[in-house]
Amino acid sequence: MTWLPTLITESPEEGFELALKLSRMGVKKTQPNDEIRGKLRSVYEQDADALIASSAVVATNFQTVAAANNYWK
Amino acid sequence: MTWLPTLITESPEEGFELALKLSRMGVKKTQPNDEIRGKLRSVYEQDADALIASSAVVATNFQTVAAANNYWK
Amino acid sequence: MTWLPTLITESPEEGFELALKLSRMGVKKTQPNDEIRGKLRSVYEQDADALIASSAVVATNFQTVAAANNYWK
Amino acid sequence: MTWLPTLITESPEEGFELALKLSRMGVKKTQPNDEIRGKLRSVYEQDADALIASSAVVATNFQTVAAANNYWK
Amino acid sequence: MTWLPTLITESPEEGFELALKLSRMGVKKTQPNDEIRGKLRSVYEQDADALIASSAVVATNFQTVAAANNYWK
Amino acid sequence: MTWLPTLITESPEEGFELALKLSRMGVKKTQPNDEIRGKLRSVYEQDADALIASSAVVATNFQTVAAANNYWK
Repeated sequence: MTWLPTLITESPEEGFELALKLSRMGVKKTQPNDEIRGKLRSVYEQDADALIASSAVVATNFQTVAAANNYWK
Repeated sequence: MTWLPTLITESPEEGFELALKLSRMGVKKTQPNDEIRGKLRSVYEQDADALIASSAVVATNFQTVAAANNYWK
Repeated sequence: MTWLPTLITESPEEGFELALKLSRMGVKKTQPNDEIRGKLRSVYEQDADALIASSAVVATNFQTVAAANNYWK
Repeated sequence: MTWLPTLITESPEEGFELALKLSRMGVKKTQPNDEIRGKLRSVYEQDADALIASSAVVATNFQTVAAANNYWK
Repeated sequence: MTWLPTLITESPEEGFELALKLSRMGVKKTQPNDEIRGKLRSVYEQDADALIASSAVVATNFQTVAAANNYWK
Repeated sequence: MTWLPTLITESPEEGFELALKLSRMGVKKTQPNDEIRGKLRSVYEQDADALIASSAVVATNFQTVAAANNYWK
Protein backbone atom coordinates (compact mmCIF):
# COMPACT_ATOMS: atom_id res chain seq x y z
CA MET A 1 0.00 0.00 0.00
CA THR A 2 1.51 3.29 -1.07
CA TRP A 3 1.64 6.33 1.23
CA LEU A 4 1.25 8.63 -1.79
CA PRO A 5 -1.31 7.25 -4.22
CA THR A 6 -2.02 10.61 -5.88
CA LEU A 7 -1.37 14.36 -5.66
CA ILE A 8 -5.03 15.08 -6.41
CA THR A 9 -7.14 16.19 -3.46
CA GLU A 10 -10.75 17.21 -3.12
CA SER A 11 -10.09 20.64 -1.63
CA PRO A 12 -7.34 23.19 -0.94
CA GLU A 13 -7.37 22.25 2.74
CA GLU A 14 -6.78 18.59 1.95
CA GLY A 15 -4.03 19.75 -0.39
CA PHE A 16 -2.38 21.59 2.46
CA GLU A 17 -2.57 18.45 4.59
CA LEU A 18 -0.88 16.53 1.80
CA ALA A 19 1.86 19.19 1.64
CA LEU A 20 2.43 18.64 5.37
CA LYS A 21 2.63 14.88 4.80
CA LEU A 22 5.19 15.32 1.99
CA SER A 23 7.26 17.62 4.24
CA ARG A 24 7.27 15.07 7.07
CA MET A 25 8.12 12.22 4.70
CA GLY A 26 11.11 14.29 3.55
CA VAL A 27 12.35 14.12 7.14
CA LYS A 28 11.31 10.51 7.79
CA LYS A 29 13.14 9.20 4.73
CA THR A 30 16.38 10.67 6.10
CA GLN A 31 15.71 9.68 9.72
CA PRO A 32 13.42 6.62 9.73
CA ASN A 33 13.73 5.98 13.47
CA ASP A 34 10.43 7.05 15.09
CA GLU A 35 11.91 7.42 18.55
CA ILE A 36 14.72 9.74 17.43
CA ARG A 37 12.29 11.85 15.37
CA GLY A 38 10.01 12.07 18.41
CA LYS A 39 12.84 13.40 20.57
CA LEU A 40 13.92 15.90 17.94
CA ARG A 41 10.33 17.02 17.52
CA SER A 42 9.95 17.89 21.20
CA VAL A 43 12.89 20.27 20.78
CA TYR A 44 12.22 21.92 17.42
CA GLU A 45 8.52 22.46 18.03
CA GLN A 46 9.62 24.99 20.64
CA ASP A 47 12.18 26.62 18.35
CA ALA A 48 10.88 29.52 16.25
CA ASP A 49 13.58 29.20 13.58
CA ALA A 50 12.84 25.51 13.07
CA LEU A 51 9.09 26.16 12.89
CA ILE A 52 9.58 28.85 10.25
CA ALA A 53 11.91 26.54 8.30
CA SER A 54 9.26 23.82 8.50
CA SER A 55 6.65 26.22 7.18
CA ALA A 56 8.97 27.00 4.25
CA VAL A 57 9.09 23.32 3.31
CA VAL A 58 5.32 23.05 3.52
CA ALA A 59 5.02 26.12 1.27
CA THR A 60 7.24 24.52 -1.38
CA ASN A 61 5.31 21.26 -1.28
CA PHE A 62 2.00 23.15 -1.34
CA GLN A 63 3.12 24.78 -4.61
CA THR A 64 3.47 21.31 -6.11
CA VAL A 65 0.16 20.03 -4.82
CA ALA A 66 -1.71 23.20 -5.83
CA ALA A 67 -0.30 23.04 -9.37
CA ALA A 68 -1.23 19.34 -9.59
CA ASN A 69 -4.81 20.28 -8.75
CA ASN A 70 -4.87 23.25 -11.13
CA TYR A 71 -5.34 25.35 -7.99
CA TRP A 72 -8.76 23.71 -7.37
CA LYS A 73 -10.32 25.96 -9.98
CA MET B 1 -15.93 24.78 8.36
CA THR B 2 -12.68 24.81 6.43
CA TRP B 3 -9.97 27.43 7.06
CA LEU B 4 -9.01 27.32 3.36
CA PRO B 5 -12.10 27.19 1.17
CA THR B 6 -10.36 28.53 -1.93
CA LEU B 7 -7.13 30.06 -3.24
CA ILE B 8 -9.10 32.62 -5.26
CA THR B 9 -9.17 36.14 -3.87
CA GLU B 10 -10.71 39.37 -5.11
CA SER B 11 -7.48 41.37 -5.18
CA PRO B 12 -3.70 41.08 -4.93
CA GLU B 13 -3.80 42.51 -1.41
CA GLU B 14 -6.26 39.84 -0.26
CA GLY B 15 -4.00 37.32 -1.97
CA PHE B 16 -1.09 38.54 0.11
CA GLU B 17 -3.18 38.16 3.26
CA LEU B 18 -3.96 34.59 2.24
CA ALA B 19 -0.23 33.93 1.73
CA LEU B 20 0.34 35.15 5.30
CA LYS B 21 -2.39 32.83 6.55
CA LEU B 22 -0.87 29.85 4.73
CA SER B 23 2.54 30.68 6.22
CA ARG B 24 1.15 30.83 9.74
CA MET B 25 -0.80 27.60 9.27
CA GLY B 26 2.47 25.95 8.25
CA VAL B 27 3.75 26.82 11.72
CA LYS B 28 0.52 26.07 13.56
CA LYS B 29 0.22 22.57 12.10
CA THR B 30 3.65 21.74 13.55
CA GLN B 31 3.08 23.55 16.86
CA PRO B 32 -0.67 23.63 17.55
CA ASN B 33 -0.33 25.00 21.11
CA ASP B 34 -1.43 28.66 21.04
CA GLU B 35 0.40 29.57 24.22
CA ILE B 36 3.75 28.20 23.06
CA ARG B 37 3.39 29.91 19.67
CA GLY B 38 2.57 33.16 21.47
CA LYS B 39 5.76 32.94 23.54
CA LEU B 40 7.89 32.10 20.51
CA ARG B 41 6.31 34.98 18.61
CA SER B 42 7.32 37.54 21.22
CA VAL B 43 10.91 36.46 20.65
CA TYR B 44 11.14 36.06 16.89
CA GLU B 45 9.25 39.24 16.07
CA GLN B 46 12.27 41.05 17.48
CA ASP B 47 14.76 38.91 15.56
CA ALA B 48 15.71 40.21 12.12
CA ASP B 49 16.79 36.80 10.79
CA ALA B 50 13.48 35.22 11.79
CA LEU B 51 11.50 38.08 10.24
CA ILE B 52 13.38 37.75 6.96
CA ALA B 53 12.86 33.97 7.02
CA SER B 54 9.14 34.57 7.63
CA SER B 55 9.01 36.93 4.68
CA ALA B 56 10.61 34.21 2.53
CA VAL B 57 7.81 31.79 3.42
CA VAL B 58 5.19 34.41 2.61
CA ALA B 59 6.89 35.02 -0.75
CA THR B 60 6.71 31.32 -1.63
CA ASN B 61 3.05 31.09 -0.65
CA PHE B 62 2.29 34.31 -2.51
CA GLN B 63 3.68 32.70 -5.68
CA THR B 64 1.11 29.94 -5.30
CA VAL B 65 -1.80 32.28 -4.60
CA ALA B 66 -0.83 34.67 -7.41
CA ALA B 67 -0.62 31.80 -9.92
CA ALA B 68 -4.00 30.48 -8.74
CA ASN B 69 -5.50 33.89 -9.50
CA ASN B 70 -3.73 34.21 -12.85
CA TYR B 71 -1.95 37.19 -11.28
CA TRP B 72 -5.30 39.06 -11.02
CA LYS B 73 -5.08 39.96 -14.69
CA MET C 1 -6.59 52.59 -0.28
CA THR C 2 -4.76 49.37 -0.97
CA TRP C 3 -0.96 49.10 -0.82
CA LEU C 4 -1.02 46.50 -3.61
CA PRO C 5 -3.50 47.50 -6.31
CA THR C 6 -1.88 45.37 -9.03
CA LEU C 7 1.15 43.22 -9.88
CA ILE C 8 1.41 44.85 -13.30
CA THR C 9 4.22 47.39 -13.73
CA GLU C 10 5.39 49.45 -16.65
CA SER C 11 8.97 48.17 -16.68
CA PRO C 12 11.26 45.49 -15.22
CA GLU C 13 12.82 48.07 -12.92
CA GLU C 14 9.44 49.03 -11.47
CA GLY C 15 8.75 45.32 -11.12
CA PHE C 16 11.92 44.95 -9.06
CA GLU C 17 10.80 47.82 -6.85
CA LEU C 18 7.47 46.06 -6.34
CA ALA C 19 9.33 42.87 -5.38
CA LEU C 20 11.20 44.89 -2.75
CA LYS C 21 7.90 46.27 -1.44
CA LEU C 22 6.39 42.78 -1.21
CA SER C 23 9.47 41.56 0.67
CA ARG C 24 9.25 44.40 3.18
CA MET C 25 5.52 43.90 3.66
CA GLY C 26 6.24 40.26 4.48
CA VAL C 27 8.32 41.55 7.40
CA LYS C 28 5.96 44.38 8.36
CA LYS C 29 2.94 42.09 8.59
CA THR C 30 4.78 40.00 11.19
CA GLN C 31 6.31 42.97 13.03
CA PRO C 32 4.04 46.01 12.48
CA ASN C 33 5.87 48.25 14.97
CA ASP C 34 7.84 50.83 12.96
CA GLU C 35 10.23 51.62 15.80
CA ILE C 36 11.21 47.99 16.40
CA ARG C 37 11.68 47.38 12.66
CA GLY C 38 13.86 50.50 12.50
CA LYS C 39 16.11 49.22 15.27
CA LEU C 40 16.38 45.77 13.70
CA ARG C 41 17.16 47.35 10.35
CA SER C 42 20.14 49.26 11.71
CA VAL C 43 21.58 45.91 12.76
CA TYR C 44 20.81 43.64 9.82
CA GLU C 45 21.80 46.16 7.16
CA GLN C 46 25.34 45.66 8.41
CA ASP C 47 25.07 41.87 8.47
CA ALA C 48 26.08 40.12 5.26
CA ASP C 49 24.05 36.99 5.97
CA ALA C 50 20.88 39.01 6.55
CA LEU C 51 21.45 41.04 3.39
CA ILE C 52 21.88 37.89 1.30
CA ALA C 53 18.77 36.40 2.90
CA SER C 54 16.88 39.61 2.06
CA SER C 55 18.06 39.40 -1.53
CA ALA C 56 16.73 35.83 -1.66
CA VAL C 57 13.26 37.01 -0.65
CA VAL C 58 13.36 39.75 -3.27
CA ALA C 59 14.37 37.17 -5.89
CA THR C 60 11.37 34.98 -5.03
CA ASN C 61 8.98 37.92 -5.17
CA PHE C 62 10.54 39.13 -8.41
CA GLN C 63 9.74 35.74 -9.95
CA THR C 64 6.08 36.35 -9.16
CA VAL C 65 6.04 39.92 -10.47
CA ALA C 66 7.96 39.01 -13.62
CA ALA C 67 5.57 36.15 -14.40
CA ALA C 68 2.58 38.45 -13.81
CA ASN C 69 3.99 40.83 -16.40
CA ASN C 70 4.85 38.05 -18.86
CA TYR C 71 8.47 39.11 -18.34
CA TRP C 72 7.72 42.51 -19.94
CA LYS C 73 7.94 40.93 -23.39
CA MET D 1 25.22 3.04 -16.97
CA THR D 2 23.63 6.33 -15.97
CA TRP D 3 22.28 6.92 -12.47
CA LEU D 4 19.52 9.15 -13.91
CA PRO D 5 18.11 7.62 -17.10
CA THR D 6 14.81 9.54 -16.92
CA LEU D 7 12.66 11.82 -14.74
CA ILE D 8 9.56 9.79 -15.60
CA THR D 9 8.27 7.46 -12.89
CA GLU D 10 5.30 5.16 -12.67
CA SER D 11 3.77 6.70 -9.57
CA PRO D 12 3.98 9.73 -7.25
CA GLU D 13 5.68 7.59 -4.61
CA GLU D 14 8.42 6.54 -7.05
CA GLY D 15 8.71 10.19 -7.99
CA PHE D 16 9.32 11.08 -4.35
CA GLU D 17 12.02 8.39 -4.18
CA LEU D 18 13.65 9.94 -7.25
CA ALA D 19 13.54 13.36 -5.57
CA LEU D 20 15.37 11.85 -2.60
CA LYS D 21 17.97 10.37 -4.95
CA LEU D 22 18.51 13.73 -6.67
CA SER D 23 18.91 15.41 -3.28
CA ARG D 24 21.52 12.89 -2.18
CA MET D 25 23.39 13.14 -5.47
CA GLY D 26 23.56 16.90 -4.91
CA VAL D 27 25.53 16.14 -1.75
CA LYS D 28 27.56 13.26 -3.20
CA LYS D 29 28.77 15.34 -6.16
CA THR D 30 30.27 17.85 -3.72
CA GLN D 31 31.58 15.24 -1.27
CA PRO D 32 32.23 12.01 -3.19
CA ASN D 33 33.97 10.23 -0.30
CA ASP D 34 31.55 7.61 1.07
CA GLU D 35 33.26 7.35 4.44
CA ILE D 36 33.14 11.09 5.12
CA ARG D 37 29.49 11.28 4.05
CA GLY D 38 28.73 8.34 6.35
CA LYS D 39 30.28 10.15 9.32
CA LEU D 40 28.45 13.38 8.55
CA ARG D 41 25.20 11.47 8.18
CA SER D 42 25.44 9.98 11.65
CA VAL D 43 25.55 13.55 12.99
CA TYR D 44 22.99 15.38 10.88
CA GLU D 45 20.36 12.64 11.06
CA GLN D 46 20.08 13.56 14.72
CA ASP D 47 19.94 17.30 14.04
CA ALA D 48 16.45 18.72 13.52
CA ASP D 49 17.65 21.76 11.54
CA ALA D 50 19.60 19.57 9.12
CA LEU D 51 16.65 17.21 8.68
CA ILE D 52 14.31 20.11 7.89
CA ALA D 53 16.87 21.53 5.46
CA SER D 54 17.11 18.11 3.80
CA SER D 55 13.34 17.97 3.47
CA ALA D 56 13.45 21.40 1.78
CA VAL D 57 15.84 20.06 -0.87
CA VAL D 58 13.63 17.04 -1.45
CA ALA D 59 10.62 19.35 -1.84
CA THR D 60 12.42 21.38 -4.53
CA ASN D 61 13.46 18.26 -6.42
CA PHE D 62 9.98 16.79 -6.06
CA GLN D 63 8.61 19.91 -7.81
CA THR D 64 10.82 19.09 -10.78
CA VAL D 65 9.94 15.41 -10.88
CA ALA D 66 6.21 16.08 -10.44
CA ALA D 67 6.22 18.62 -13.29
CA ALA D 68 8.12 16.18 -15.50
CA ASN D 69 5.38 13.60 -14.91
CA ASN D 70 2.56 16.13 -15.43
CA TYR D 71 1.70 15.43 -11.77
CA TRP D 72 0.82 11.80 -12.66
CA LYS D 73 -2.54 12.95 -13.99
CA MET E 1 18.67 55.68 -17.31
CA THR E 2 17.35 52.42 -15.88
CA TRP E 3 19.67 49.71 -14.54
CA LEU E 4 17.24 47.02 -15.76
CA PRO E 5 15.92 47.88 -19.20
CA THR E 6 14.94 44.30 -20.08
CA LEU E 7 15.18 40.67 -18.96
CA ILE E 8 16.00 39.57 -22.49
CA THR E 9 19.63 38.67 -23.17
CA GLU E 10 21.45 37.40 -26.22
CA SER E 11 22.82 34.24 -24.63
CA PRO E 12 22.57 32.03 -21.53
CA GLU E 13 25.87 33.40 -20.26
CA GLU E 14 24.62 36.98 -20.46
CA GLY E 15 21.49 35.79 -18.71
CA PHE E 16 23.61 34.42 -15.88
CA GLU E 17 25.39 37.78 -15.61
CA LEU E 18 21.99 39.48 -15.37
CA ALA E 19 21.00 37.06 -12.60
CA LEU E 20 24.14 38.10 -10.72
CA LYS E 21 23.23 41.75 -11.20
CA LEU E 22 19.70 41.19 -9.88
CA SER E 23 21.12 39.36 -6.85
CA ARG E 24 23.49 42.22 -6.06
CA MET E 25 20.77 44.83 -6.52
CA GLY E 26 18.69 42.91 -3.99
CA VAL E 27 21.48 43.58 -1.49
CA LYS E 28 22.18 47.14 -2.62
CA LYS E 29 18.57 48.22 -2.29
CA THR E 30 18.67 47.20 1.38
CA GLN E 31 22.17 48.55 2.05
CA PRO E 32 22.83 51.40 -0.43
CA ASN E 33 26.09 52.50 1.21
CA ASP E 34 28.96 51.40 -1.06
CA GLU E 35 31.58 51.56 1.68
CA ILE E 36 29.62 49.35 4.08
CA ARG E 37 28.86 46.82 1.35
CA GLY E 38 32.57 46.80 0.45
CA LYS E 39 33.53 45.97 4.03
CA LEU E 40 30.90 43.24 4.31
CA ARG E 41 32.03 41.80 1.00
CA SER E 42 35.61 41.38 2.17
CA VAL E 43 34.24 39.21 4.98
CA TYR E 44 31.58 37.11 3.28
CA GLU E 45 33.64 36.35 0.19
CA GLN E 46 35.79 34.24 2.50
CA ASP E 47 32.81 32.56 4.16
CA ALA E 48 31.64 29.35 2.52
CA ASP E 49 28.11 29.55 3.92
CA ALA E 50 27.65 33.08 2.60
CA LEU E 51 29.01 32.11 -0.82
CA ILE E 52 26.62 29.16 -1.05
CA ALA E 53 23.73 31.40 0.05
CA SER E 54 24.73 33.91 -2.64
CA SER E 55 24.75 31.16 -5.24
CA ALA E 56 21.21 30.23 -4.13
CA VAL E 57 20.01 33.77 -4.83
CA VAL E 58 21.67 33.74 -8.24
CA ALA E 59 19.97 30.40 -9.01
CA THR E 60 16.55 31.84 -8.19
CA ASN E 61 17.14 34.92 -10.31
CA PHE E 62 18.52 32.78 -13.13
CA GLN E 63 15.23 30.86 -13.16
CA THR E 64 13.43 34.13 -13.83
CA VAL E 65 15.83 35.30 -16.55
CA ALA E 66 15.88 31.89 -18.24
CA ALA E 67 12.07 31.73 -18.32
CA ALA E 68 11.95 35.28 -19.72
CA ASN E 69 14.19 34.17 -22.57
CA ASN E 70 12.29 30.93 -23.16
CA TYR E 71 15.52 29.19 -22.12
CA TRP E 72 17.29 30.61 -25.23
CA LYS E 73 15.71 27.93 -27.37
CA MET F 1 34.60 30.92 -25.66
CA THR F 2 31.56 30.90 -23.39
CA TRP F 3 31.29 28.61 -20.36
CA LEU F 4 27.51 28.34 -20.91
CA PRO F 5 26.72 27.94 -24.60
CA THR F 6 23.29 26.39 -24.03
CA LEU F 7 20.94 24.96 -21.38
CA ILE F 8 20.08 22.03 -23.64
CA THR F 9 21.65 18.71 -22.75
CA GLU F 10 21.40 15.24 -24.23
CA SER F 11 20.22 13.50 -21.08
CA PRO F 12 18.93 14.13 -17.54
CA GLU F 13 22.31 13.15 -16.11
CA GLU F 14 24.11 15.74 -18.26
CA GLY F 15 21.47 18.22 -17.14
CA PHE F 16 22.33 17.48 -13.53
CA GLU F 17 26.01 18.05 -14.28
CA LEU F 18 25.08 21.42 -15.82
CA ALA F 19 23.10 22.30 -12.69
CA LEU F 20 26.23 21.57 -10.66
CA LYS F 21 28.26 23.80 -12.95
CA LEU F 22 25.77 26.66 -12.61
CA SER F 23 25.84 26.29 -8.82
CA ARG F 24 29.64 26.46 -8.73
CA MET F 25 29.72 29.45 -11.08
CA GLY F 26 27.35 31.23 -8.68
CA VAL F 27 30.09 30.88 -6.06
CA LYS F 28 33.00 31.60 -8.41
CA LYS F 29 31.49 34.85 -9.66
CA THR F 30 31.42 36.13 -6.08
CA GLN F 31 34.81 34.69 -5.10
CA PRO F 32 36.94 34.41 -8.28
CA ASN F 33 40.15 33.51 -6.43
CA ASP F 34 40.83 29.79 -7.01
CA GLU F 35 43.09 29.43 -4.01
CA ILE F 36 40.59 30.91 -1.55
CA ARG F 37 37.77 28.77 -2.96
CA GLY F 38 40.02 25.72 -2.63
CA LYS F 39 40.64 26.45 1.05
CA LEU F 40 36.93 27.05 1.73
CA ARG F 41 36.06 23.85 -0.08
CA SER F 42 38.27 21.74 2.15
CA VAL F 43 36.22 23.02 5.09
CA TYR F 44 32.66 22.98 3.81
CA GLU F 45 32.92 19.58 2.14
CA GLN F 46 33.17 18.18 5.67
CA ASP F 47 30.25 20.28 6.95
CA ALA F 48 26.83 18.64 6.65
CA ASP F 49 24.92 21.94 6.72
CA ALA F 50 27.00 23.36 3.88
CA LEU F 51 26.61 20.19 1.83
CA ILE F 52 22.82 20.26 2.24
CA ALA F 53 22.79 23.96 1.33
CA SER F 54 24.85 23.16 -1.77
CA SER F 55 22.40 20.45 -2.73
CA ALA F 56 19.58 23.01 -2.43
CA VAL F 57 21.30 25.29 -4.94
CA VAL F 58 21.80 22.39 -7.33
CA ALA F 59 18.10 21.50 -6.98
CA THR F 60 17.08 25.05 -7.93
CA ASN F 61 19.38 25.09 -10.94
CA PHE F 62 18.24 21.62 -11.96
CA GLN F 63 14.66 22.95 -12.10
CA THR F 64 15.81 25.51 -14.65
CA VAL F 65 17.77 23.05 -16.76
CA ALA F 66 15.01 20.42 -16.65
CA ALA F 67 12.40 22.97 -17.76
CA ALA F 68 14.71 24.15 -20.56
CA ASN F 69 14.88 20.56 -21.82
CA ASN F 70 11.15 19.95 -21.43
CA TYR F 71 12.15 17.36 -18.86
CA TRP F 72 13.84 15.26 -21.59
CA LYS F 73 10.47 13.93 -22.69
